[in-house]
Amino acid sequence: MRMYDLIMKKRNGGILNDEEIRFMIDGYTKGEIPDYQMSAMMMAIYFKGMNEEETVNLTMAMAESGEMLDLSSIQGIKVDKHSTGGVGDKTSLALTPMVAACGVKIAKMSGRGLGHTGGTIDKLESFEGFSTEISTEQFIRNVNEIGIAIMGQTRELAPADKLLYALRDVTATVDNMSLIASSIMSKKLAAGADAIVLDVKTGSGAFMKKEADAFSLAKEMVSIGKNAGRKMMAVISDMDQPLGNAVGNALEVKEAIATLRGEGPKDFTELCLTIGSCMLQLSGLADNDEEAKEKLQSVIENGSALNKLASFVEAQGGNKNMVYEPELLPKAAIISPLYAPCDGYIDRIACDEVGICSLILGGGRETKESKIDLSVGIVLQKKVGDYVRKGEPLAVIHANDEDKKKICEERLLAAYRISNEKKDEGPVIRGLVR
Amino acid sequence: MRMYDLIMKKRNGGILNDEEIRFMIDGYTKGEIPDYQMSAMMMAIYFKGMNEEETVNLTMAMAESGEMLDLSSIQGIKVDKHSTGGVGDKTSLALTPMVAACGVKIAKMSGRGLGHTGGTIDKLESFEGFSTEISTEQFIRNVNEIGIAIMGQTRELAPADKLLYALRDVTATVDNMSLIASSIMSKKLAAGADAIVLDVKTGSGAFMKKEADAFSLAKEMVSIGKNAGRKMMAVISDMDQPLGNAVGNALEVKEAIATLRGEGPKDFTELCLTIGSCMLQLSGLADNDEEAKEKLQSVIENGSALNKLASFVEAQGGNKNMVYEPELLPKAAIISPLYAPCDGYIDRIACDEVGICSLILGGGRETKESKIDLSVGIVLQKKVGDYVRKGEPLAVIHANDEDKKKICEERLLAAYRISNEKKDEGPVIRGLVR
Repeated sequence: MRMYDLIMKKRNGGILNDEEIRFMIDGYTKGEIPDYQMSAMMMAIYFKGMNEEETVNLTMAMAESGEMLDLSSIQGIKVDKHSTGGVGDKTSLALTPMVAACGVKIAKMSGRGLGHTGGTIDKLESFEGFSTEISTEQFIRNVNEIGIAIMGQTRELAPADKLLYALRDVTATVDNMSLIASSIMSKKLAAGADAIVLDVKTGSGAFMKKEADAFSLAKEMVSIGKNAGRKMMAVISDMDQPLGNAVGNALEVKEAIATLRGEGPKDFTELCLTIGSCMLQLSGLADNDEEAKEKLQSVIENGSALNKLASFVEAQGGNKNMVYEPELLPKAAIISPLYAPCDGYIDRIACDEVGICSLILGGGRETKESKIDLSVGIVLQKKVGDYVRKGEPLAVIHANDEDKKKICEERLLAAYRISNEKKDEGPVIRGLVR
Repeated sequence: MRMYDLIMKKRNGGILNDEEIRFMIDGYTKGEIPDYQMSAMMMAIYFKGMNEEETVNLTMAMAESGEMLDLSSIQGIKVDKHSTGGVGDKTSLALTPMVAACGVKIAKMSGRGLGHTGGTIDKLESFEGFSTEISTEQFIRNVNEIGIAIMGQTRELAPADKLLYALRDVTATVDNMSLIASSIMSKKLAAGADAIVLDVKTGSGAFMKKEADAFSLAKEMVSIGKNAGRKMMAVISDMDQPLGNAVGNALEVKEAIATLRGEGPKDFTELCLTIGSCMLQLSGLADNDEEAKEKLQSVIENGSALNKLASFVEAQGGNKNMVYEPELLPKAAIISPLYAPCDGYIDRIACDEVGICSLILGGGRETKESKIDLSVGIVLQKKVGDYVRKGEPLAVIHANDEDKKKICEERLLAAYRISNEKKDEGPVIRGLVR
């Protein structure tokens, strides 16, 4: 078999079979197939696409290019959750204790943030002493005993995907549905969960700008997962504006805690309940959405969701008092409101810009080596559709540096568009794929 | 400027401007743009194409990536001729003395053969002592005095094309009209002639299988050349069967000599007269095709074309007696007819197979380092449309090795298809583009 022939086949609109896809992925992972042939192939796939079977085979070949985690020593159905990423997305922080309090088993590998979207591990490190550097034994024991454990991505899952993504990133071959779907799903399949709930974001701040594309991606990934024998559901959710109000590590942790107390922002709470409902249904812990949401509401109301977060934080070395007294979490020195320059309705909040503001304040990583400031960030006071009067605060900036605060103020103001006409914000949940 | 953005632009169907194309070609030639980005670009061009302006700009950027030959010290209009290649294509051998005898200036750089199509230099080396390793001074002096000189490709013309062609060859991005046209024309433009006549082959033994594609390629190249200020014409000619009868170095030289005596095969003679006519017209030595062909006929009839070949061979160190006594040329030990297995009309002769037969006999190079046997080859006795009786010779094999002869016999027999119905061979000249 020769890579040349495979490129030619795909270029001419042919279908690559499983053996051919494995040859290509194995050869590339071993360094036997050069980058220049793989990039030509990726461009051919960009133009000619891959059918469902090819996409499934590509995903499996990448998933199996490295270690496949074995979670069989954890009792019950292990459910994983994946978000395609966005600004203010602290869903895992609130969601996992909620569903764990209902009996779902969460054995999760998480990453750190890069660029303007934060990572779950960074956020969790707002709890003094918290560590994701735990042994596999402790990881499994914690899931069995508490219901949640989160490990850093120490092991290299799906190394083929890592290589391929880096190549696609510099050859303008990222935005193809099959390639995106297989990239995400190869890592998820290697991570070993029995059921996976996907949160596919759509809108100006998401990778999928158009709702129709988000649905297509969700369908493609659900299909891949089912083909690989996993239980699958996907939620399509809004990312036209930041999720919830808080953007920034400790600020997002505070908002997650508030949500576990039943005092969270409406959009964020709704998203947690919807994804949580999917997780409960896939685990067999609820028969339908109504029953699932009732269970989730009750673990919020009776405090067991918040207690679950505390046990989880404690089990990984964190200070659980911070869960009950969030004012102990890292706090910025400068807390400064940004005032509205005129009256009107909030027409738009440029999502990415809010993320970049948090990055500028020190809340994100510019490179893998950057140290981040957990205390800084932004808390939005007005969101799309809200009315604001001149001089009322649009947002509150949490900073530790006056200069950075000023740069942030200017950009954040420009990120808001105020109009005379009221625009309804879209619903946070755009649909489900199962 | 970033290569990434250029790939994205082309991928999305955009038009690359001159500055962008130069950035890409210069960067790639210097090794600053990596192969994997260039191959992604080539695949994007394969799918999205290039318009006329882009193709011209790409050609000029590649032509100017190395030395541009300056032939201004040669008096008169210098005319070059290029064939897209085929089996039995000894056109340059007969054509250049004919047109030089009429007053055309031929300053040519030629290559050696690789694979199953022979190179002009190899064929010329059938003349004992002949060498293309001459100094630039002698080259120019010979053109001025005799009208013809042929140099080996010692200088690297259009190095960008060389790099790019090697990359396209392994990434399934060869067959795009703009890329093929710019590859050929970049070298021709760098070689410095004032006028260029192209011989674009079509048929089963040509790169362009379909006549319409050959016309498109011819038009594209003529347009590029004109844009670069050169006088241009193109002939579209048949390569559904080998050109003329002889395939093999010294055998083709003999056929070229016979043609210069007016005793050549009909198809080959017609092609030489047609291309020659274009060369005379572009040089201003004839006003129309009729006048040009009369001049060419007269230099054949009065012997001056043959004498021109002799002077040319002698000026580059070769034994000119061989021109007048072709039986002195290298001769194979085994001369063995291949007999027809049945009665019938020749329906097809698989062109590439005949070329491969010559290669098997030792007449071609398998790798750049191979030494070739000038004496071996095949002389076809029957061509498409001819009637043959069982036991009559289809071809004569010239070999120096019994085993190789046997392998050759089998393949050559399989290359012939004999049928009960007479099929007319197509005309050797399919059209002109000017």
